[in-house]
Amino acid sequence: MNLKKDAGYKAAEYVKDGDILGLGTGSTTHYFIEKVGMRIKEEGINVMGIPTSFQSLLLAKQWNIPITSLEEHDIDLAVDGADEVDGDFNLIKGGGAAHTKEKIVDYSAKKFIVIVDESKCVDKLGAFPVPVEVIPEASRTVINALEDMGASCEIRMAERKDGPVITDNGNFVIDAKFDEIESPCHLEIDLNTIPGVVENGIFSQMVDKVIVGTSEGIKEL
Amino acid sequence: MNLKKDAGYKAAEYVKDGDILGLGTGSTTHYFIEKVGMRIKEEGINVMGIPTSFQSLLLAKQWNIPITSLEEHDIDLAVDGADEVDGDFNLIKGGGAAHTKEKIVDYSAKKFIVIVDESKCVDKLGAFPVPVEVIPEASRTVINALEDMGASCEIRMAERKDGPVITDNGNFVIDAKFDEIESPCHLEIDLNTIPGVVENGIFSQMVDKVIVGTSEGIKEL
Repeated sequence: MNLKKDAGYKAAEYVKDGDILGLGTGSTTHYFIEKVGMRIKEEGINVMGIPTSFQSLLLAKQWNIPITSLEEHDIDLAVDGADEVDGDFNLIKGGGAAHTKEKIVDYSAKKFIVIVDESKCVDKLGAFPVPVEVIPEASRTVINALEDMGASCEIRMAERKDGPVITDNGNFVIDAKFDEIESPCHLEIDLNTIPGVVENGIFSQMVDKVIVGTSEGIKEL
Repeated sequence: MNLKKDAGYKAAEYVKDGDILGLGTGSTTHYFIEKVGMRIKEEGINVMGIPTSFQSLLLAKQWNIPITSLEEHDIDLAVDGADEVDGDFNLIKGGGAAHTKEKIVDYSAKKFIVIVDESKCVDKLGAFPVPVEVIPEASRTVINALEDMGASCEIRMAERKDGPVITDNGNFVIDAKFDEIESPCHLEIDLNTIPGVVENGIFSQMVDKVIVGTSEGIKEL
């Protein structure tokens, strides 16, 4: 059983001929992009993709999905994964450090579908730390501000390069673990008001549908 | 008469031996940095500077002000200019496209002094457009969001390179002209919640003192 594949393939059924698609990043969205590529090849549907990362750009090219940009087109449907989803459709994203471009793309889409396996569904956000993209030279002052808000913080370190992970935008990611996230919507705003923060991984009030791959089959919320 | 010089030189009197200084950017701060350099040379005061731009870095080096960073030190005193100051000490900054690093530095300072000539003092912010630093690929969607908020927008174009101004962080600047800015504090937050916005030029609730160069002499507010 591949619950990520189930969710990703299911989302691809929502793609209509002529759609401009926001292409999320990560291991679940991988299957969405794959299935869109298969539908282009097999059914000849005519779509274009706007990637949220180098990863999704390369994958889209591999599947011969024509690429466009937000400069040229509005997005009909964005499909993206998440690290956590709560019952009100609030998300934590950014495990792949792509949350800034993901939020730009997902926010601008007419419809935004989140695809996850069941392990990502939680009652309340917060077991996963909130990824906060920061301008490198502000990392210490942002960490101070986050700690004042009650978070434990770590600058995310890379594994295949020395030193910190560098995002596709050239910044650092601070993983901020809060004990409790009472109001995702307020936390999202508060984090973005800290000078030096480019974007944070809380996505509130943006999601239209959640597709969950479970061991008992697909659930659509 | 040089009102900018008057204000910049006056602010340098607030520098104490041992201070870590935030060094703003622009034509008024230029004189502050100059005077700090003169005090180092003449009085032998021992200070270090944290620049907000390549411009202030180079100027500080020219005046032999030792440079440090926010990684290493907290800031005792930041001094910076502004494009507009209202009676409640709210600012519009970013005419020099340095407002993101300026906000990081100025916000983290124990004390923040603004230096302006009298032409910058206004009853209400908004004659000057609000500079909004954006991740380049989000410029169109951010402009759409700003227009929905009632602003007229232009991507700031460069004069000594083709195409848009690129900030020290590698981004674009959108100049957003609002008819009226009723609440600078709320506008500052609202702008930063638009995905793709890195930072905006409204500085509310941060300023400790304003030094104004006027044709009748220095005023300290």
